[in-house]
Amino acid sequence: MTERLTLHEYAPSGNCYKIRLTAALLGIPLERRGYDILKGETRTPAFLADVNANGRIPVLQIGDRFLPESNAACVWLASDSRLIPADRFDHADMLRWMFFEQYNHEPNVATLRFWLAFIGEAALSESQRAQLPARRAAGQAALALMDEHLADHAFFVGESLTLADIALYAYTHVAGEGGFDLAAFPAVSGWLERVAAQPGHLPLSA
Amino acid sequence: MTERLTLHEYAPSGNCYKIRLTAALLGIPLERRGYDILKGETRTPAFLADVNANGRIPVLQIGDRFLPESNAACVWLASDSRLIPADRFDHADMLRWMFFEQYNHEPNVATLRFWLAFIGEAALSESQRAQLPARRAAGQAALALMDEHLADHAFFVGESLTLADIALYAYTHVAGEGGFDLAAFPAVSGWLERVAAQPGHLPLSA
Repeated sequence: MTERLTLHEYAPSGNCYKIRLTAALLGIPLERRGYDILKGETRTPAFLADVNANGRIPVLQIGDRFLPESNAACVWLASDSRLIPADRFDHADMLRWMFFEQYNHEPNVATLRFWLAFIGEAALSESQRAQLPARRAAGQAALALMDEHLADHAFFVGESLTLADIALYAYTHVAGEGGFDLAAFPAVSGWLERVAAQPGHLPLSA
Repeated sequence: MTERLTLHEYAPSGNCYKIRLTAALLGIPLERRGYDILKGETRTPAFLADVNANGRIPVLQIGDRFLPESNAACVWLASDSRLIPADRFDHADMLRWMFFEQYNHEPNVATLRFWLAFIGEAALSESQRAQLPARRAAGQAALALMDEHLADHAFFVGESLTLADIALYAYTHVAGEGGFDLAAFPAVSGWLERVAAQPGHLPLSA
């Protein structure tokens, strides 16, 4: 790999952490450039023009090309590695869990963490406050589905860690910051320990 | 391909249509089994136990294995086909647009279509009604981002149709049913025509 890799990120974001964790597990060096999303630094004209017209982090810069969407960046990094199953069904099943993560898990588990631990409940808008119960219920349902699957699987797909685990680990292991009680999901808790024990694992705060 | 393929679906769903369109473009035969989501047929104990614990369609059944998540099913079907770029960056960039579709586009463009054209505005809950302005704005933003990209690209990734186009076409071409005005997005409109002109294309109603 000869192209320079730069992660455009907000370090506390779980979506950004997925990319750092994937790179760390594979021993791939990443440069990091931080933006404070609480100050709107990813909505500036320069960011929108040069990094991501969608105004979001993370973006993985590969040489002079920019790749938004955390899970897509993980796939690029892990191309032809042990983190992506070669088997046709398992490969698609890995993506299945990654799409589940972005559709059912992140908008609820990650959003509640952001609203409660970063913005703060007192500073939420009327509209955000009104969405709390539905997002909490949907987040609980996502965690319950994971718990059911992990009750008889060590990892989400196959017998070892894949990008599906990395994608779901990122916001699950800090779900408590959004008010979710992980003690209610014992299979999830055991899986979190298995992911954290992987050689090369690094914490979100690293 | 020797395994029998069954699409568990609700035919008017754009997510289900993605899978039928992918199969049609590749000449892959699919059996279809319908469920009426308006009658809760994907939330029955039998469906949850046998087809998808997440209570959602589509699910692609491959022999005796079940693959939820529309975009994952498309990847399985299109494995090693012209619809998935072989180039490492383009492959990840295709997934980037597919994750964008599930995160930024579907929850807004598809949800407004479902609420307004299937449930009906008069029958919406208080909570759904309160979400209409934000979802409309987010759907407009997703369509605007697509329009900006398509202003100088014939397709989302590379020079020909990929799964990124199929994923985004499914709900974009019926966005009018959710109250979006596609005339405001001329590059999107031209791209919709290019997708519809692909050999083997079939309409949502087929």
